[in-house]
Amino acid sequence: MKFSCLRENLLQAVSIAERAVASKSTMNILEGLFIEAKENEIRFLGNNLELCIDCSITGNVEKKGSCVVKANLFSDAIKKLPASNQEVFVEVNENNVIFITCGNAKFNFSTAPADEFPRPQEINALDEMVLEESLLKNMIRQTVYAISQNDTKPYLTGILFDMKNGLLNVVGCDGYRLAIRREALTHEKDLQFIMQGKTARELLSLLGDSDYKVTVKVSDKQAQLYLKNCVVTTRLIDGDYLNYETVAKHENTLFVVTETKEILDSVDRASLIASEAIKAHVLLHIEDGQVNINCETILGQVKDKFEVDMQGEPIEIAFNPRYLLEAFKNTECKEIKMSFSTALNPVIIQPVSGNSFQYIVLPVRLH
Amino acid sequence: MKFSCLRENLLQAVSIAERAVASKSTMNILEGLFIEAKENEIRFLGNNLELCIDCSITGNVEKKGSCVVKANLFSDAIKKLPASNQEVFVEVNENNVIFITCGNAKFNFSTAPADEFPRPQEINALDEMVLEESLLKNMIRQTVYAISQNDTKPYLTGILFDMKNGLLNVVGCDGYRLAIRREALTHEKDLQFIMQGKTARELLSLLGDSDYKVTVKVSDKQAQLYLKNCVVTTRLIDGDYLNYETVAKHENTLFVVTETKEILDSVDRASLIASEAIKAHVLLHIEDGQVNINCETILGQVKDKFEVDMQGEPIEIAFNPRYLLEAFKNTECKEIKMSFSTALNPVIIQPVSGNSFQYIVLPVRLH
Repeated sequence: MKFSCLRENLLQAVSIAERAVASKSTMNILEGLFIEAKENEIRFLGNNLELCIDCSITGNVEKKGSCVVKANLFSDAIKKLPASNQEVFVEVNENNVIFITCGNAKFNFSTAPADEFPRPQEINALDEMVLEESLLKNMIRQTVYAISQNDTKPYLTGILFDMKNGLLNVVGCDGYRLAIRREALTHEKDLQFIMQGKTARELLSLLGDSDYKVTVKVSDKQAQLYLKNCVVTTRLIDGDYLNYETVAKHENTLFVVTETKEILDSVDRASLIASEAIKAHVLLHIEDGQVNINCETILGQVKDKFEVDMQGEPIEIAFNPRYLLEAFKNTECKEIKMSFSTALNPVIIQPVSGNSFQYIVLPVRLH
Repeated sequence: MKFSCLRENLLQAVSIAERAVASKSTMNILEGLFIEAKENEIRFLGNNLELCIDCSITGNVEKKGSCVVKANLFSDAIKKLPASNQEVFVEVNENNVIFITCGNAKFNFSTAPADEFPRPQEINALDEMVLEESLLKNMIRQTVYAISQNDTKPYLTGILFDMKNGLLNVVGCDGYRLAIRREALTHEKDLQFIMQGKTARELLSLLGDSDYKVTVKVSDKQAQLYLKNCVVTTRLIDGDYLNYETVAKHENTLFVVTETKEILDSVDRASLIASEAIKAHVLLHIEDGQVNINCETILGQVKDKFEVDMQGEPIEIAFNPRYLLEAFKNTECKEIKMSFSTALNPVIIQPVSGNSFQYIVLPVRLH
């Protein structure tokens, strides 16, 4: 294998592909980065068997071939190339030693044979959808924080993509709170799959804020996303998701409109003494156009109050402050609407108009 | 105790004083922050018995008194006060409960009695010196990185301040390298003390870049520094420092002038494969106006070269790359001069003209 390419392109491709490299694995080869020189194209592949990232750049290929390099060593070497030189020369000799040359700097180290490296299979797409990368990023960001951290129910550790009648719902839930993000997409097939939380978080880093159209192909077991710079292949989570459409269908009796920052800061303040104590909750008392917040633990007490627009019956209701805070932080709205029924029913947090997102948070039962 | 003060002043004082609060201590009271309301002045004190920081602000004191609060709880509460309000009201009642009020937000939690808190004693100053805070900061920064991380020789875990005949030398050394920073200060008494490394690092955070004159008072066991915002009292390290003036008095036979960034980047590149291997070194071969750098370990090999101005005999000499890198990073000079004698004698790194600093690094013995 022998090729040369621009330092900058190499840097970018390696930093993308190495995101899928296993940091520790019983299969040593998975800690490596697969490199393949093809006709005028160099391909970099990281694969931890859950997630595979495939990133290609153009370059001058003198001799085709492939190898597997220790990912962190190769990546660090590329980062440390002298910045004053534009072009990088890479060659693997007959003894499987890779030589990287850039200006006067020369690195060499041994590589592993490429045939042991698991390459992703062509996926047998049953369905696909297309959406802008900025929208996909936003829909993931506004739901992935709500997924479960423990895997007693594996489907709750992922986010659901549910495309139905031209409406895409992305859903995250951990059993105590549920985040739904909705967006109309025209001319798309119906489609449902559960993406792993880890993959969703990696996508947040890989996706940009442009209007580039990402194609998502889905088979029984896998999804493949065609991003601007790379192709991401990921295992899907098996099983059925909960029927999120039927959650919180009770009738609400109190509607509150408030500035997001005001209630966020106030709950954050109250949570100061809750964070260290076990099962602490914040109590919201909403009456006469005022929210009174109170939190009392073994450490001390915090009280706060602020004015809101309210319509309906007063309420006294308690929450795990973390669930409220994470919801408020992810609204990306200046104002929000909160809908309550009784102290035992969940609150629904959504935009003041429309329902592009809905966060449903179960209260803490006080008595 | 009852007082009010500006939110901003309170924030600043607490963030300074809490730097000296013990994060974990067998004496619980040391995890606290001492607060004392005096005539129109509120004093905050953190003391971990090695280091004590004393910071006072002005305020309206209605009732004098003192208490000790859990430092992290108090500090977090102050940070979370509503930013829209300027004034903070603090009161401790007869049950030792502190009430903090700012706008609609109210915190309360219990405090500990102040009389158990160890206050710093007035130090019996034998000597003192005065220097600008920016200079003190610079002199510490350029020497403290060279101190020893293990305490088999306690005096090597601190930096020496040696004021003699109007010349202040600050010295850090770990037995393998020695950093000296020199500066002429007129009209100062002779003075010598060893400051703990931890204290020196805290001072880097506390000192600003202004020309404010810091007074340093020194007794047998302690030093007291009068900074712009606070007074720092610290235990000194007992014992004699090594006679640093006699180190590296051999005659040099090779003088090299090089761009600091060029040699820094080049050694950094070479150290890539040294970092993970044990006892790896970089080899410098300097001849015919060229530095050839080579590093070879079990991981692979890195080579590099660059041009320099040289005068004298060629040399081949090996170093621990970390010692070189840390020296280069702390020169703050665009160009440096390196003086060599034999492969067994230390290199001296200093400015191209003058000797405001000198870094002396022992080579690795190859054979």
